[in-house]
Order: sequence, then structure tokens, then C-alpha cells
Amino acid sequence: MKNLFVVMFFFVLTQMSCKYYSQSSDLDLLRKYEKQTKEILDSALENRKGYNYLTELCGFGHRLSGSDNSIKAIKWAEAKMKELGFDNVWLQPVMVPRWVRGNVEKATIVNSRQFNGRKLSISALGRSIGTEKNGITAGVLEVKSTKELKALGYKVKGKIIFVNKHFNETNFNTFTSYGEVANERYNGPLECAKYGAVAMILRSATSKYDNIPHTGVTAPFDSLKAIPSAAIGLIDADFLSKALQKDPDLKIKLNLSCKNEDEVQSYNVIGEIKGSEFPEEVIVIGGHFDCWDVSCGAHDDGAGCIQTMEVLDLFKRLNIKPKRTVRCVFFINEENGTRGGIEYGKYAKASGEKHIAAIESDRGAFTPRGFYVDSDSVKYGKIKMWLPLLEETGIDWIKKGGSGVDISKIESCKTKIGFVPDWQHYFDYHHSANDEIDAVSPRELELGTAAIAIMTLLLSEEGI
Amino acid sequence: MKNLFVVMFFFVLTQMSCKYYSQSSDLDLLRKYEKQTKEILDSALENRKGYNYLTELCGFGHRLSGSDNSIKAIKWAEAKMKELGFDNVWLQPVMVPRWVRGNVEKATIVNSRQFNGRKLSISALGRSIGTEKNGITAGVLEVKSTKELKALGYKVKGKIIFVNKHFNETNFNTFTSYGEVANERYNGPLECAKYGAVAMILRSATSKYDNIPHTGVTAPFDSLKAIPSAAIGLIDADFLSKALQKDPDLKIKLNLSCKNEDEVQSYNVIGEIKGSEFPEEVIVIGGHFDCWDVSCGAHDDGAGCIQTMEVLDLFKRLNIKPKRTVRCVFFINEENGTRGGIEYGKYAKASGEKHIAAIESDRGAFTPRGFYVDSDSVKYGKIKMWLPLLEETGIDWIKKGGSGVDISKIESCKTKIGFVPDWQHYFDYHHSANDEIDAVSPRELELGTAAIAIMTLLLSEEGI
Repeated sequence: MKNLFVVMFFFVLTQMSCKYYSQSSDLDLLRKYEKQTKEILDSALENRKGYNYLTELCGFGHRLSGSDNSIKAIKWAEAKMKELGFDNVWLQPVMVPRWVRGNVEKATIVNSRQFNGRKLSISALGRSIGTEKNGITAGVLEVKSTKELKALGYKVKGKIIFVNKHFNETNFNTFTSYGEVANERYNGPLECAKYGAVAMILRSATSKYDNIPHTGVTAPFDSLKAIPSAAIGLIDADFLSKALQKDPDLKIKLNLSCKNEDEVQSYNVIGEIKGSEFPEEVIVIGGHFDCWDVSCGAHDDGAGCIQTMEVLDLFKRLNIKPKRTVRCVFFINEENGTRGGIEYGKYAKASGEKHIAAIESDRGAFTPRGFYVDSDSVKYGKIKMWLPLLEETGIDWIKKGGSGVDISKIESCKTKIGFVPDWQHYFDYHHSANDEIDAVSPRELELGTAAIAIMTLLLSEEGI
Repeated sequence: MKNLFVVMFFFVLTQMSCKYYSQSSDLDLLRKYEKQTKEILDSALENRKGYNYLTELCGFGHRLSGSDNSIKAIKWAEAKMKELGFDNVWLQPVMVPRWVRGNVEKATIVNSRQFNGRKLSISALGRSIGTEKNGITAGVLEVKSTKELKALGYKVKGKIIFVNKHFNETNFNTFTSYGEVANERYNGPLECAKYGAVAMILRSATSKYDNIPHTGVTAPFDSLKAIPSAAIGLIDADFLSKALQKDPDLKIKLNLSCKNEDEVQSYNVIGEIKGSEFPEEVIVIGGHFDCWDVSCGAHDDGAGCIQTMEVLDLFKRLNIKPKRTVRCVFFINEENGTRGGIEYGKYAKASGEKHIAAIESDRGAFTPRGFYVDSDSVKYGKIKMWLPLLEETGIDWIKKGGSGVDISKIESCKTKIGFVPDWQHYFDYHHSANDEIDAVSPRELELGTAAIAIMTLLLSEEGI
């Protein structure tokens, strides 16, 4: 029994000492960054510089890829990064599609004694073709989902399909609900065309009950003959649904002048602070610079760009010299092609630079809640240990999860992180005329900036 | 060595089996409530009944304790609880102070060539006396805090003290910043009077930069001669501060018609569902029914009352028969006396009922973040195990912390819980004309209701 106790004693001692060292080094890490993280939070919230930058950016109006507006904004961003004194600032050329909405966008009820002349609040969907000059006039078939089309067979032919799929209000995670409707939007026109429909009108993918339509991209038609498509505001979607019950023979006259033009030159905007110890190791932080042409895209994704630019600005003004290179990338064309993300991915591969981590902010400028980490479990475990340093910015959790569309194209990068703010209201604004600067809370935007800045600092100083 | 291995073997086995059983019973608990918690969330978000109740309640206007309005609203609440079919509904008599604002509330700059006649946006502070009919006209002394008064000595005498204490924007927890300013508000008039000032004007305790003043309670004067006090909107606070730099001799003419009248009869509104197995064990859930007289108190605390009433309504419509009695209490007079909480506390003591737990919702109707639990560590540990059932409502954490003012008066209750939603914007609305129904997101309100309902269900079914 004596041996037993000796062995047990050492066993317990080993366990205790492991525990002790592990805790001690964890605490040292927290102590090391306690002051800097507080300075970052204070400076973000007190000075609200990012909010001012976002206000400036919103002054340009929309930034749809390939638009003249987007080029003006790109030049502003390049000049701003230079003005802020980043070590290197450059434009990365990207060819992007050019889709133009034009001036005509009308849907009017005709062929109905009761509802004749009633105009509906619509917005052409991205990549949609226009109608002929005199519009398309056709009967309307309402479905809850394009999955119903197959069973409806010949009834679809020659009709405008009204996809009245509701945003599921019972999901806490609104992105789940959005995904369901966005899938109808993306593939819907193709499905409708397959069964002989002449156009598609989609209930807007939003949780906000108003009459503002929410646009968004649709799938390319390739060999199939394209048909036009538009989103309709929720109030008019409900109106149309009731009107169809009362008068199933009503028709809609749809006039859209949108068109796809030749691809044009555009750019990712890139700015970086070189690493002081490991300049060859790169951390990318960014959002997408383009937005739909119905607002200035304040939340989607002006905010994400500005937050990540302000991270570098915070480092400059707080005299933080990151050990590793921190590179801010404004990706172009996320909304209708992801060309910016793809181009950066190609560059990352060709340059041979070591991309150790990437953070994307593309879920709006709301109060921070967490970070999703896409990495192996060891890297994930290391990042999770940093949570206490992030909690004062509103970060309650770090979980495994998806990061973002643009950074997903950096294949060699093994740690991809998505910033996750409160998602209750993102789809109130997303892809609509509601997404203007007044929808952004300066305080919430800056809390997000601080969260991303602290995560970036830790990745840069501790490595991953 | 053989013995050693035998002992080690059993040691490891015991550890494994403990782990196994503990996990198994945890999982059983989660499985048991998985369906019900989803039903609660779905029903709250789909039907939004609470939001409709809150809209009805807001139709009455403000509910300041002792006001005629508050009595009308109390009768509505009693009738509503009866209509919803609760087992018992009653009014609990409470004597409350009656403070009346009256029609006159003016602050005008006089004795200044540059600023003469400029009106300032103010709101009398609760419990303030009025001025004489012709008002008080006096010079103004600006301080950052009433702590400065002692050093200023004789300069304070005869002056209107302008306490220009800023809301600290760098705290993630806005309640911390509020506490600092609220302390100036509560004790400020007393301090000013002590040093001979004739009135106090306070920079509003808010994070929202607009010109709406935010009222709130002040301390009783007791033996000291009372002086009047008012809050000033942030834009005018900054204006006044700059004006004083340019013209230190300007005076303010302050006219307030507010007064303290005799106490009047009021009521807590109480409704309950009797427990099916342990009716003698009571869980109190509630908020405070009174609000300041400058808005309908949609967030503060109409929302908290309605959320807890909807918990009982959810149980009724989902046919949930709680094992323990669940009692919803609308406490009166939290804002300026806590008489409702004190009265309920006395009743709880005298009745000898076993109050096993209480939940208060008084931090606004924003997206849920967590629950604070005030209990011993064993009870706290038990509640923490329920977190996975709450996460779909937005609850990220359960921590030890303060519960709420009203339920703190139930002395025998050993588990007091405070519902904690996102706090970034509570003080944008709090105690001001901004706190109207349009400031409330139906979705966020109902997520809170679902969170409180699930917590209540678990307390009722599992005990504590």
C-alpha cells in the first residue's frame, strides 16, 4: 500500500502542477493585454472615428460593382487609407459584372375591375434582365415555394410566378430564416423559367414589416432563356395575395429596364501595417465594399469595411506596432459574383505569403455577440482562451462556425473568423433602401470595431 | 503493484461512472423540456400577443404613481388578467406619494446680451418642489459633479448649480455609467441646498445625443429647506456650458409648477396560475407598473410587466400546467418610493407562503443576453445547467448578479433572478419622452418573454 500512496501522491502532484502552470500562463496572457484592450475600447467609443468615416462613405450613395459611384468610393477609400498613414496602400484590379437598373421599375395590376391600376412596390432582382419596352402583362400564380412548380405543371406556363415565401419569425438566428428565402430568390427565376413562366415576383427576404422591397442576386441562366424577376415589399405582398383570392384573373403589367452590360474594371482596396517581427505572416481583416444600388449599404457592408479600416487606424493612434502584418481588404463584388474575394484568393496563392488568419465582418454594425471560428480544434482552443479580453466589447462567446464569403477564398489560411453581432434586425435593412447611415448606432458600430481590433491584436501578437 | 492497479482501476471507474451519470441526467433534463421550450419560443414570436398588450397599455399614456392615468391602467391590467383566464387576480392596496408636474416648466436665459430669451429644454426631477409663481432668477455655476461644491464654498450661495456630469461612453455596461450620473441626480439637490444654492439643473442621464430631458427621482429633503431641480437635454447642456464660458454672468429664470401632494391609494396588480402539485410554493415574476409622466414607459417598465403577464398567458395557451404557483406581480411606485415592492414584501412575510424564486424584468425590451442570479452557489449551479434550453431565445449566459429592486423586498426568497437584455440603448429612452411604443421591437420584446417563460417553467417544474 505504501507504493500505492507514493504513486498516487505523484499522480495528484503532476495533475496539480499541470493545472497550476496552465492557469498561470492563461492569467499572464490576460494581464499582458488588459491595458491595451481597454485603450482600444475607450478610443473606439470616445472618438467614434469609424462612425465619421462611415458617414463620409455613405455620402457617395450606393456602391454597386462596376458603377461609377463605386469607383468614386474606391478612390475615396484609397485616399483615406493613405491619409491614415498605413504602411502600404494599393488597389488590386478585379474585372466585375456591370448590372444596371435603369429608370423604369413598375408593377401595376391590370385586367381587374376591383384592383385595376394599383401599383406594387417592387425592386428588380440583381442580374435580372429587363422586360420588353412595353412590359410583360400576364396572369399571376402564387406559390409558397418554387418547389410547388413541378406539381403545377402546365399551369405555370405564361404566368408571372409570385413566390410568397414568408421569413420564418420563429428562428432566433435570422440568418437561418434568410437562407431559406434567399435560396428561393437565387434559384427561383431559373426554376420558374424551366416550367415556362414569364417572370417571377418574390416576397422580400426580410423580417421588417413595411413596404420597402429587398433586392439580391439571382442565379445566371446560362443556356436557358432568361426571364425578369423582382422583389416586392411585404405590405404589397400581402395585398397581392389577398387580391388574388378575390380576383384570381387579375394580371400584372411588369416594366423593368434593368440590363446586364459588359464587364468593367474595378478594384479591391488594400491597406496594411507591416509586422514588426514577422512581416511575412499576414492577418487579413475586411468586409465587402460593394453594395446593392438601393441605398449606401451602411450595414451591408460599409460597416464591415470601416470597422476593419478603423482597426488599423486604432493601432496607429494607440501606437500599437503589430508583430505580424495586418492587412485590411475591401473586397469588391461580393453581392453579385464574389470576384473580389476570388481575385484576392488567387493573389494570396500566387504571392506565397503566409496568411495565418483572416477575419470578416459582414453581418451589420450591431452590438457584438460572438466570433465564429473556422479552424482546427487546437487553434480554436487557443482563440477561445482570449474570451475574457473580449467580453467588455460585448463578445459573449467564441464558437466553431462559418466565417465569411470573401475570406473563404484564401485557401491556404487555416484560421478564418467571422464577427457575429446581434442579428435580430440585420434583415430589416439588408439589400433595401432602409440601409442608410441613420440605421447605424455609432456605439454599436464602435463596439464591433473594438472587438475586431482586440481579436486582431491577439492574433498578431500571439500568433496562431 | 497488483493492489495499486486494482485501486487505480476502481478509482478511474468511479470517476467515469460519476461523469456518465451526471451527463446522462443533464441530458435527460434537456430532452424533457426541448419540445416545450421550442413551443414557447414559437408561440411568442409568431403571435406577438405581448406586443399587442403593450400597445394597448401604452394607449393610456403615462402611469406615474398616484396619477389618475395610473389607476385607469391598473384597472385595465386587472381586467386583462381576468380576461386571460388566470386562476386568481387581485389588487393589493398600496399607499403611494403623489407628485404632480403641473403645466409650467420653463428655463430661460436672462441677464445676457448675447443669449437673452434663449429657452432651455428641461424637465423637473421627480419629488422636486416648484418655484415661486414668478420663478427663480439666479446666476449659474457649472460643476462636473456635486463633489466640487465643498471646495467652491461661498460661491455656491444663491446660485443655480448646473451639474454637467457626462454619461461615460466607454463602459460596455451602460448601467455602470447610469449609476454614476443617477447618484448625482438623487443626492444632488440635497448637496446643492446644503451649500446654499437655490436650484439645480442636471445634464440628463442618457447615452442619446438629442435634446430630450430625462427625469428621475431625487432624495427627500427631510429637515433641510427643499430647492427645485430639473434635468436638461444634452444639446442644451452643451449649449449652456459654452454660453457660460462666453458670458459667465448670464442668469437663468426657472419656473416650475410641480408639487408634492398627499399620499393616495394605489395598487399592485397580481395574477397567478395555481401550482398543480405544489400550490403552496410560489414563483413571483414581474416588473414595475408605474413610470415617469413624460411617456408611456414602454421600455421602463411597461415591457417588463407585459413580458411577465405573457408568461402566464403562454402557459395558458400552450396548456402548460405548472407544478408550482406562478404569480405575476405588477409592482407600483418603483420610480419614486418602491412602495409596491415593500408592500408585497410585507405580504409575503405575513402570508407565510413559500416564495421559492422571483424573476424581475426591468431593463427594457431588448434582445436577451443573460440572467443574473442572486442565490447560493448550489441553486446558482442548478440554474446554470439550464442554459442550453435558453440559448435559442438569445440567452448567452447565466451569472451571479443583482436581480431587481422590487423583488429584493421578498426577504424569504432565496433565489432572485434579473432578466438582462442588451443594454446599449436602454438609457436612450429611459425616463424620457422617447420611451414610447415605437421604441420597442416586437421581436426583441417577445424573445425576452420567451426567455423568462422558459426560466419560469424550469423553476416551476424542477424546483429550486
